[in-house]
Amino acid sequence: MTAAIPARLFHFVAGNNGPWRIEGAQCISGAPLPAAARIAMVPDSPGFHPDRASWSLRGITSNERYVTRDEKTALVAKQEGLGRPQANCAALIPIRKTAAWWALPQDERRHILEAQSQHIAIGMKYLPAIARRLHHCRDLGSDQPFDFITWFEFAPADTSAFDELLATLRASPEWNYVDRESDIRLVHAGD
Amino acid sequence: MTAAIPARLFHFVAGNNGPWRIEGAQCISGAPLPAAARIAMVPDSPGFHPDRASWSLRGITSNERYVTRDEKTALVAKQEGLGRPQANCAALIPIRKTAAWWALPQDERRHILEAQSQHIAIGMKYLPAIARRLHHCRDLGSDQPFDFITWFEFAPADTSAFDELLATLRASPEWNYVDRESDIRLVHAGD
Repeated sequence: MTAAIPARLFHFVAGNNGPWRIEGAQCISGAPLPAAARIAMVPDSPGFHPDRASWSLRGITSNERYVTRDEKTALVAKQEGLGRPQANCAALIPIRKTAAWWALPQDERRHILEAQSQHIAIGMKYLPAIARRLHHCRDLGSDQPFDFITWFEFAPADTSAFDELLATLRASPEWNYVDRESDIRLVHAGD
Repeated sequence: MTAAIPARLFHFVAGNNGPWRIEGAQCISGAPLPAAARIAMVPDSPGFHPDRASWSLRGITSNERYVTRDEKTALVAKQEGLGRPQANCAALIPIRKTAAWWALPQDERRHILEAQSQHIAIGMKYLPAIARRLHHCRDLGSDQPFDFITWFEFAPADTSAFDELLATLRASPEWNYVDRESDIRLVHAGD
């Protein structure tokens, strides 16, 4: 990989190492992930293999699947990136959606996601406090454990706002199509 | 992988083996693929590695990205699957789209693809004669050689209709965003 092409594929490696200490792990639905103490988020590189991991997940950043031009303009104006010094809390939330979701055509998925569930508008409400990066997993191979991994970063004072964001999304019609979800909370413990 | 989960990931392995004989290979834009005599389309399986291949590409079938409910209903009613005995001609067409395409929000990509270019309507016009399966490549890793691989199957008598279909798509505004394309024509030569 040359310097001109930034990695889009990331490994989330859970075990005894990594800069992020696991403070809590909750299985919301479906099969739980094994326990671990720390997580490292590692950009993919040729020949990378996670060693001695409790578990390891992969996800890739990609083009927007639902966002319109107006929504994108508003999001870009308001959002901030990962790595802010004060945002030393993180959450790793892998989810899987049902076969019924994936069988829906594009217009019906968009309708459930935004017209019924306000997914994009809800996320917008918590910007810039809650930074996020969405990683896609479903199309990495025929049989993946999750469809998406979202990584969130925020300051400790915004934890209750983050909990509210998640509760709102989980109560939405879109979440009827989620059949596996874990919620792993982390604190940055130094590199 | 269990029997309950059909493979979505396929390898297109070009070399001296495989049931499909290459009758012609044309580079439409971007870097060409090396010459080869035959192609095998192989569902992914654990530990599969193509041996002695001239080249090998991978792609995965996925959910629809643009098709609406009405379009899906019309397509499903009219299309036929791969493997029809009389459809012993095939084409393998890998394409890559520009960074500008991928930076567009969903509504603008849909607008170019269908409102401006009639991509879905044009494909529909040639059903059921021209069967197709779309494979996605872009999100298999950070730096893929192509974004899509489409595999087409048709009877010899439909070759000129297929050429017309391709000419129409390549003249559309959507193709301004295609920066690499090859067109490989094949005949089934026995398993």
